[in-house]
Order: sequence, then C-alpha cells, then structure tokens
Amino acid sequence: MKINANYLNLKQSYLFAHIAKKVAEFSAANPDAKIIKMGIGDVTRPLCSEVVSGLIEASEQMGKAETFKGYGPEQGYDFLKQSIADYYAGNGVQLELDEVFISDGAKSDLGNILDLFDADNTVLIPDPVYPVYVDTNIMAGRKVLFMNANESNGFLPLPDESVKADIIYICSPNNPTGAVYGKDALKKWVDYALKNAAVILFDSAYESFVTDAELPRSIYQIEGAKKCAIEFCSFSKTAGFTGTRCGYTIVPNALVSGEVSLNKLWLRRQTTKFNGVPYVVQYAAAKVFTKEGKAQINENLAYYRENAKIITDTLDKLGIWYTGGKHSPYVWLKCPNGMSSWEFFDFLLEKGNIVGTPGEGFGQNGEGFFRLTAFSTKENTLEAMERLTKILG
Amino acid sequence: MKINANYLNLKQSYLFAHIAKKVAEFSAANPDAKIIKMGIGDVTRPLCSEVVSGLIEASEQMGKAETFKGYGPEQGYDFLKQSIADYYAGNGVQLELDEVFISDGAKSDLGNILDLFDADNTVLIPDPVYPVYVDTNIMAGRKVLFMNANESNGFLPLPDESVKADIIYICSPNNPTGAVYGKDALKKWVDYALKNAAVILFDSAYESFVTDAELPRSIYQIEGAKKCAIEFCSFSKTAGFTGTRCGYTIVPNALVSGEVSLNKLWLRRQTTKFNGVPYVVQYAAAKVFTKEGKAQINENLAYYRENAKIITDTLDKLGIWYTGGKHSPYVWLKCPNGMSSWEFFDFLLEKGNIVGTPGEGFGQNGEGFFRLTAFSTKENTLEAMERLTKILG
Repeated sequence: MKINANYLNLKQSYLFAHIAKKVAEFSAANPDAKIIKMGIGDVTRPLCSEVVSGLIEASEQMGKAETFKGYGPEQGYDFLKQSIADYYAGNGVQLELDEVFISDGAKSDLGNILDLFDADNTVLIPDPVYPVYVDTNIMAGRKVLFMNANESNGFLPLPDESVKADIIYICSPNNPTGAVYGKDALKKWVDYALKNAAVILFDSAYESFVTDAELPRSIYQIEGAKKCAIEFCSFSKTAGFTGTRCGYTIVPNALVSGEVSLNKLWLRRQTTKFNGVPYVVQYAAAKVFTKEGKAQINENLAYYRENAKIITDTLDKLGIWYTGGKHSPYVWLKCPNGMSSWEFFDFLLEKGNIVGTPGEGFGQNGEGFFRLTAFSTKENTLEAMERLTKILG
Repeated sequence: MKINANYLNLKQSYLFAHIAKKVAEFSAANPDAKIIKMGIGDVTRPLCSEVVSGLIEASEQMGKAETFKGYGPEQGYDFLKQSIADYYAGNGVQLELDEVFISDGAKSDLGNILDLFDADNTVLIPDPVYPVYVDTNIMAGRKVLFMNANESNGFLPLPDESVKADIIYICSPNNPTGAVYGKDALKKWVDYALKNAAVILFDSAYESFVTDAELPRSIYQIEGAKKCAIEFCSFSKTAGFTGTRCGYTIVPNALVSGEVSLNKLWLRRQTTKFNGVPYVVQYAAAKVFTKEGKAQINENLAYYRENAKIITDTLDKLGIWYTGGKHSPYVWLKCPNGMSSWEFFDFLLEKGNIVGTPGEGFGQNGEGFFRLTAFSTKENTLEAMERLTKILG
C-alpha cells in the first residue's frame, strides 16, 4: 500500500512532549524543587457534583434492561441538543436541533470536519495558533497561509482583502493568546468569508470565560455567520470535561456550497465514521445546563478567573505587556528583558521552578512570547506569581 | 470553498433508515401488530454489574480533586491496554502496550485509519459487507474492487492471485453473514498481503462469539500477520457497549511501508485528531476482564448464543440454507421460495410481523439472502421462529 505521504511533512516533535522532557530532566537534577505547572491547558477542579450525579444516574440506567441504551443517534441525543440550543438562545442565537452535533470534543471535530473539503482549498490560519489547525491540514496536503497576529494588532488579525482563502480558522477567546474578538471585528471576518465564498471554522472552546456581554460568545451573534461559519465548542473548559470528552459542533442549515448543504455532508460523515458519544457522558453533560449545574460550573469558572486575575495583576505591577486573562484562562505575555520564548522557559523553570509554554511553540509570531494558564490552584498561582516577582525584581 | 466531491458519489439512502421507514409505515397501518425486531445489530442486555460498578466508581473519582482525571493519553490508559494485551496473550498473541490503541469503537477507527493511506490505493472489499467499509473509501475517492462472497464459497472468499489490491478488508466472524474464517484460509490472506505489500484491515468485532478453539479470534494468531494487518475490535458486542462506546485497534510495530512505521503514523493521527476515550468508560471497560466481569459477560454471550441456536434449529427444520449463528450473533439465510431480499423482508414483516435485514442492502451478492440477529430476547426469538415456521409451513 501507499501511505499518505503528507504525514511525512509533519514536524516530528510535539510542543508539550518537548516541555515534558525538559521538566523531567530538571526534576531529576533537582529532586527537591517544588515545580508549579502553568503550562498545559488542562483543568484541575473535579467535575461538579451535578455532573457526577448525572454520570452515576445514567450508569445505573445502563445496568437495567428497561432503561439500558444501545446505539444512540450518531449526532447525539435530543435532550442534550435541546439544552445546547436553549443555551444559544440565551445568547440571542436561534438554532434548529439538526444543526447541533454532539461530539467527543472540539479537537476531534476540528480535525474531522476537514473530510468535507477538497484538498485543493487554501487555508488561512492565524500565527500563533493551536497546533492542530495546522497539522490536520498538512496531513491532507492543503496549502496553508498564515496571518500575522502580533503585538501591533493585539494578536487579533483582521482580513487582508488581497489574500484569497477558502477555509479560515478563528479561535476566540484565543488559544494561546487569550485575545477576544469584538463584534465589529468578527463582522469583518464574516463579510470577508461571504464575499470570498469561504468557510470560517470558529473555535469557541473558551467562550464560557467571556464575562463582558458586549463580546461575542458565538460567531452566530454576527449577522450572516450562519451562511459561512461552522462553530466548535466543548465542555472541556466550561465544565472540566477534558477527561470526560464531550463537545458540540454547529453546522447551520444555511451553510451551503453551491447546492450542497454542509450540514447534510457532515451528517453523512458522522453517521458513517462515528457512533456518537457515550450515553452516560451525554446525560451528564446535560446536567451542566440545570440551574444547580450552572451555579456549580460558574463557581469553578470564577475560581480560574481569579487565578487569571492574580497573574494579570502581577504582570501589571511588573509592567509586562500581555493579552488575555480577562475573558480567558490564558495569559499571553511578552517575555521580559528581550528573552526568547525558550530562554524565558528555561529562566522560569530554573529560577522560579515554574513551567509555562513557550510562545514559539505556537508559531513564529509566538517567538518572544509566553503562555501561562489559570488552571492551577489558587495557592500555587499565588506562589508562582510571588516567585515571578522575586526573580524579575 | 470546494467541498470533497467524493461525498456526492455516496448512495443517498442508508439501509437501516429505509427499513425504519417501512416498519413505521407498517406500524401506522397495523397499530395492533406486535412487531419483533431482529434487524439492527444492537444488543439488548444491560451492562453487567461489574461494568456498572466500574462506571460508578470512576464517576466518583472524577468528583474528587485527588482522583480527578483531566486529559488522558490519546491512545488510552495503560491499565486498559494491559488488560487487552493479557487477553490476547490468552489466545497466544503477544502484544506490546504501544501496539494497542483504545478507541471509541471499531466503526470510528475503521474509518479514521484510512487517513494513513494515499487516495491512490486499490481497495478490496468482500461483497456482501458492512456498508461503512465501502462508504469510507468512496468518501476518499479510492478505487474499490469487490470480491464475491456467495453460497458456493460459503461466503468466505479466498485470494485471487490475478487481483492486485493494496488494502484488504476482512471481517471474521463476518457481518452480515456470520461466516468465520479458519486458520488455513486466513493464512492464505496473510500470504497474499505479504506478497503484494498490501495491508489487511481485520475487523474482529464479533470475536467473542467464537467458541471453537480451532477458529482464530485474532488475525495475529496467523504467522506473519503482524507484518501486514491492523485489527479492530470493540466492546460493543463483547460486553454490550454499543451505547457506551469503547473499542481498540492493534497496529503492530512490525507493520511498515518501506521505512515508515504505521504504528507511528497512527499515533500521530490519534494525538492530533483525537483526545482519547472518557476515563470513566476506560475504567469500566477494564472491568470486563476481571474474573467476575468475564463471568458476567459470558452469561450475556451465552444468552445471545442460545437465541442464535433457536434460529438455526428452526432453519434446519425448515431446510433453509444459512451461514453463521454458530460463532456469530448473525444468521444469514437464503430467502425461501426464490424470494428476493426485499420480497422476503415484506413477507416477514406483513405475514410474521418480524423485522430482519435484506441481504441486498449489504451488496449485490446479498440479493436473495437475509440477516437475522440473535440480539432479541429469548421469548421474542422463540415467538418469531414459531411465526416463521407457521408462515412457511
């Protein structure tokens, strides 16, 4: 057989594997160092009790013939799709249930959605960016153009009319930069996509961190977006589902290419290559939307937001430039004293025993920047910021 | 954007949707008919208590900070991989842990594995067959050749040296025919694959129904198979996980194309486009391999096997030719009185109020054949076979 030779064009090493190796080496050489991890974007708070109760209830149902569930709809159960549609309605977005697809996470669907598109499409991806946008397109042999996100545009690039793209990635609140597009800026992207018959793949995995009602949580809050955008979201950051695996993808019925409905293409993809998310997980995910569930996840989100504020307050005091932290669990800072990303990584690890993520790992415009996350404990976040103040003071 | 035009070559209607429509129409016209469903291959017995306890234990762990699990390894937790490796060892197959990948089901991975192969490969698929093998290749624009499975070869075709294929699908015990390859026959396929530098995609989702120790449960029981085969299995039929979603895929380290390790390609695919199976599901799946878990799933399997025997005993009495039913939950019968598949479907539905699956839906060689499944209750299976005897008597 012939392998997909595009795979050979992928970079061999993965950012976090490299970090893990450096940290392991440092730990081995410094066994007494108390390392504080503010690198990988994984949550640390346990599932809230409503969700745990949901998991247990559903597990008990699975053990009784009368309530056992076999194959479910590949696109997800209506009870969960309805909860999601209601949530969107709260943000002023009306969705039909057949526009909502339950997924095992935004990462999977962001990769799998590319099945629907020809290899011959030009892809536009911001730099820096979540690495899987780039890698999944390299795997399919697509031409990738980058748009510069940098200090001068606040890491929120706007369309360049001279660039012709077919598939556009937007992540807002952004990973890794934490920067959030306002409605006017997103409208420019929607207009560009409509003018160029392009599709926007909108990653809203961090939308639950938005607190300003003026900032969009969904691209469908922008007029015209249902004709040009697919939205990917997840319970990972909203409700701590990183190890529980549930998300959702919105493919509007209004989104067509010529006569072809992308919603129907995606339905065909999912019914052929996917068998749905575990019933117990869907049942538990629906608990996120109950009154009690909402209160509990908001408590967790507030905890992480406070950590982010501890970080940004420290950076403000130190006079360090950053984006994010306000409507995002990520703080994206300019490395002090002209250090490169990896120099600052080594400096932080060695002098402060703090692990963060070098911005360079997210693209060339990430060089000289660094990502810290709010997903640690409050105690560790406070201690890390004390250490940072000390080593930079 | 340009869509993947290969999707437009897919047949619009899906077999089971068409059956559901016919059954709904019949039910509406005959509201008093007690319909017995022996069509779709979904299990009906609840999860065994060991698995339910596992789900509940893991759910409780997820609710406490000390035992909470965030992102796990994309390829699955070692505790489950080890249980699977031990299970294979019991069948005389030695696996390294990094050869085992935990999946959300055989269907997903059977589709996703195709990412690793160039569009320019010739695919060889038996006819009749599980429809997703064909559809997932049409979606990628690959050339598909069919090999004839029919009454004369017992629905177990052997290699034809004049046919050059790069990717070969084998499902044993087979869906839909229930036929099982012996070791000698599988060896012929392994030899053919090695000679032609082809890869065998071996679907062993029904292996737990094999009771004859002489029949292979895994293709790796055949010498040389690790150099040419990827195996897909699932807890769906073994332990009733159709709605719980867990399976596994074996990609041996010995499987290479030139210098390229397919194991490493698949690892890269999974780490980039997948985020692993829910921790609670993996934890519960591992319970299938405990002493108590094995005893409980064997009880369920014995229940379904008894149903299969009720079906085959009836067919024997009626003098109807069939395959399967012995080492498979599927019985594949030749439609009596020269009826076509859909004629027999209508006859069974109208005269017997029994729903089965027309063989024609699985490929052109399925015409004139019909699939019944053992996944109903014993009572319904007995009643269905009484009705069948009556309407054919």
